[in-house]
Amino acid sequence: MPEPVATLDEIRALMAHLPGPDLEAGTAAALRESQLTKPAGALGRLEELAQWLAIWQGRHPPHVNHPRTAVFAGNHGVAARGVSAYPATVTAQMVQNFIAGGAAVNQLCKTVDADLRVYEMNLDQPTADIVEAAAMSEEECARAIAYGMMAVEPGIDALALGEMGIANTTAAAALALALFGGEATDWVGPGTGVGGAALAAKREVVAQAAARHRAAPADPLELLRRLGGLEFAALVGAILAARMARVPVVLDGYATTAAAAVLYAADSHALDHCVVGHVSAEPGHRRLLERIGKPALFDFGMRLGEASGATLALAVLKAAAACHAGMATFAEAGVSGPA
Amino acid sequence: MPEPVATLDEIRALMAHLPGPDLEAGTAAALRESQLTKPAGALGRLEELAQWLAIWQGRHPPHVNHPRTAVFAGNHGVAARGVSAYPATVTAQMVQNFIAGGAAVNQLCKTVDADLRVYEMNLDQPTADIVEAAAMSEEECARAIAYGMMAVEPGIDALALGEMGIANTTAAAALALALFGGEATDWVGPGTGVGGAALAAKREVVAQAAARHRAAPADPLELLRRLGGLEFAALVGAILAARMARVPVVLDGYATTAAAAVLYAADSHALDHCVVGHVSAEPGHRRLLERIGKPALFDFGMRLGEASGATLALAVLKAAAACHAGMATFAEAGVSGPA
Repeated sequence: MPEPVATLDEIRALMAHLPGPDLEAGTAAALRESQLTKPAGALGRLEELAQWLAIWQGRHPPHVNHPRTAVFAGNHGVAARGVSAYPATVTAQMVQNFIAGGAAVNQLCKTVDADLRVYEMNLDQPTADIVEAAAMSEEECARAIAYGMMAVEPGIDALALGEMGIANTTAAAALALALFGGEATDWVGPGTGVGGAALAAKREVVAQAAARHRAAPADPLELLRRLGGLEFAALVGAILAARMARVPVVLDGYATTAAAAVLYAADSHALDHCVVGHVSAEPGHRRLLERIGKPALFDFGMRLGEASGATLALAVLKAAAACHAGMATFAEAGVSGPA
Repeated sequence: MPEPVATLDEIRALMAHLPGPDLEAGTAAALRESQLTKPAGALGRLEELAQWLAIWQGRHPPHVNHPRTAVFAGNHGVAARGVSAYPATVTAQMVQNFIAGGAAVNQLCKTVDADLRVYEMNLDQPTADIVEAAAMSEEECARAIAYGMMAVEPGIDALALGEMGIANTTAAAALALALFGGEATDWVGPGTGVGGAALAAKREVVAQAAARHRAAPADPLELLRRLGGLEFAALVGAILAARMARVPVVLDGYATTAAAAVLYAADSHALDHCVVGHVSAEPGHRRLLERIGKPALFDFGMRLGEASGATLALAVLKAAAACHAGMATFAEAGVSGPA
């Protein structure tokens, strides 16, 4: 990892100056949309996405020709409590699988022609057990945020974000509980596949962790530091860097959305440059999407993480941009308008 | 158009011998799915689609490398009654737009790398006005079905089906009403954008047409002949030919699904090799999908026709096939299973 380039206070200062929407590009998109050879509104959500891309790329017409999928991988001290169906060693094994090209996200990136980057975050140094301590120090958290910012490089025009980390639906649930309240049962699901007594134990772990840390000053970044993990912090950094660089973002499932929700809790407009690809089968995800006001593009009952749903959603963004830029106008095509 | 190769009775005979599912390929898919590097079921609907592709391609692993989008265009005598917001000349103008590459479906085919074929069906000879007569003669209907069969050629491994035809949501509504009952209001929507008095008149036209023809022998192909149109008959032919050739099909919106529903009404398993890409904003489509028991893959509020939703859905089929064929197994990747 690079040297820390930010403290959490520097991140807070940065959040006070996020670029806003480019309304001029949005207006140009709306005007062109009204001239294309189709009944007004007939492409539904694809039209909304084309305009959203213009607004957040600050460019008309928008394009999605060089999307990137970034997957951040971290390990969690709380995994030692048996909250996952899989051992913590699987995080590193799956990173090797990503590198070897054998995971779902590799096939999905090929399908949608996205550049895949995998960011391994000190897998041999898991965060602290959130039941007993804060997951990260201030410096660790700030460093991980800065690391995540590196996923945004010149030339990319859309960014799909996801994660890998055994036990991170436990961290996601604790973070969501601390950020938005409710009961542990509202936010805890089977993750990779725990049930019965193990699921009950997972709920108890989440309740204890949230209870321990939610009394902290109700600052979302502080809750990220206490209850999140390295990949959560990196996702926060990537989302912020994408906003600064005018790169629209597609969020993946429960853990990724929980990380993003930290920013939403701090500023309800901080995720305006983000869409959510899919709603996960992990039940807390749907609830989280309601809280941050972001309906997903599709619901395929996926619950894999590793940016799988977000990467598939890049196909929808590509389609939206392609229709908007490539369709003929009524005048160009010599097609009659409404009678 | 070619010489007629079938009568409606020959089509009925063909329907009695449709190939069934390849359960061996389906079992092979289920076995492989259980070995891939992900928690069981974590790819949700993508896993179901991979198995469905195997079953209906009769091949394991299945692939979607050479998909085709076929769009059938026809004109309707009932258009003269002002049931559409657009004049009937737009059908031919849009066919020229397809050929010139300026329509939405052209951009979508490029995005998902599908081969686009447009089938223009005697646009200067619209079908008869269904309020007053049967849309087609037996020979016209059989010839159009045979014509549609030509869309299935060797080498294609998936087929997205759609249509273009001013006034064809009127025909679709009349067909749905005659096939499944209810009231005209259940099946009539704005189509390209009629409202107010024009929408009320469209409802009346649909009610009259269905009333005139539904007393006919309750044979779905006869209702197709009386209430459908050339593109509807061609779609029926393409669906049947795809079944024979083991090519899985993606259906588009309201008009395409209404054509497919003719086959469903005749044999509730006749569409088992078909999925529906999207649910249209045209309200009758959701009702029709309920009747034929096919939940759509996504709901983007699209209502354009021209195979736009079906073509976008090809990206999902590609993703499903790619994950299934390309992912490593736990053994290959050296990833630990559940603890």
